[in-house]
Amino acid sequence: MKIAVLGTGMVGQALGTKLLELGHEVRMGSRTKDNEKAIEWTKQNPERASQGDFKEAAAFGDLIINANHGDGAIDALTQAGVENLNEKVLIDVSNPLVFTPDTPPSLFVCNTDSLGERIQKAFPQVKVVKSLNTVSAQIMVNPGLLPEDSNIFLCGNDEKAKDEAKKLLIDFGWKNINDLGDITGSRAMEMYLILWIRLMGQFQSPNFNIKIVK
Amino acid sequence: MKIAVLGTGMVGQALGTKLLELGHEVRMGSRTKDNEKAIEWTKQNPERASQGDFKEAAAFGDLIINANHGDGAIDALTQAGVENLNEKVLIDVSNPLVFTPDTPPSLFVCNTDSLGERIQKAFPQVKVVKSLNTVSAQIMVNPGLLPEDSNIFLCGNDEKAKDEAKKLLIDFGWKNINDLGDITGSRAMEMYLILWIRLMGQFQSPNFNIKIVK
Repeated sequence: MKIAVLGTGMVGQALGTKLLELGHEVRMGSRTKDNEKAIEWTKQNPERASQGDFKEAAAFGDLIINANHGDGAIDALTQAGVENLNEKVLIDVSNPLVFTPDTPPSLFVCNTDSLGERIQKAFPQVKVVKSLNTVSAQIMVNPGLLPEDSNIFLCGNDEKAKDEAKKLLIDFGWKNINDLGDITGSRAMEMYLILWIRLMGQFQSPNFNIKIVK
Repeated sequence: MKIAVLGTGMVGQALGTKLLELGHEVRMGSRTKDNEKAIEWTKQNPERASQGDFKEAAAFGDLIINANHGDGAIDALTQAGVENLNEKVLIDVSNPLVFTPDTPPSLFVCNTDSLGERIQKAFPQVKVVKSLNTVSAQIMVNPGLLPEDSNIFLCGNDEKAKDEAKKLLIDFGWKNINDLGDITGSRAMEMYLILWIRLMGQFQSPNFNIKIVK
């Protein structure tokens, strides 16, 4: 499949590389074409990897992954262009995190709204699926790094889009996938991040996850 | 130990009964003395169980547990009287949940503040420990009901108070206890509830928990 990964950070690179390994064609998108990190990534992955600005990447992808920081997500998608996003599945892995000195990290949207919902509202014809935002980049694409199977969540308004996202999650190695329902499930998945960050501080490592025991 | 359990609902009853089983003396507190549920509970537990209003219960307890609904917590503690709470350990198991028709449940305080913090701020000389709010009443006092060991959290500003709370958690059967630091950790523990509620809806049961895999 042709997949656009918007964002050149650790998350974008991990997802892009894994998708290449799985045989997909991947175009990494950034604010400006020929982003240094994107060029470096295509050099390390000469087969089926390309790069461009957000618009070029989104136009290329049959499926889009938003791997930007939360605070730049809607801006990046706006630059990508609604004409390049409409009717496509968009997997949103971003988090609305705010890091400020001297106070615990917080979210710039939560509780009665979420970033997943804001994206869906801003792009009503895009099939937004929220997923993978609850684990580190490394665990996202390699859940088997952890000593036991753990859980990954997804939500969204379009059942077929969620089925498509689920297939990717399974290809990534996820076995326990919890569908939290419509896109308002993003509230749950994003608000969990505050616990995740607290635990990361305690463990001094982002490579952990939760397993549901019932 | 003499323990006050403020709140006569499922959580208060489960905690009160477990504490009696462990050999403690427990006084259940409610808004008005001779609350029907509290009287019924003392009848079922004639040994070492008593009841009274919030003030009588708090005066009795060397350790206090707030098992009220989140929206009544500060009011209940105010009724209990600062003179009956000061210098004592207060384990707060309440959640600032709001249930409204047609919208997902939300929190009346979160993100940059929490109910745990509000209680600590309202009663600065009380040693507030937030814990047990992330599981059902049944699991709180019997984590062994689940097929695998799972994790329970606590936080608070006073190390000795957390040690005391930890001892109780261990007596309840908890093996994996994560100290999330100072009382601002309440934000993490309370915001997780939105995911918990979503999962409860999916499982149609409150009897589950998360295990940290790392």
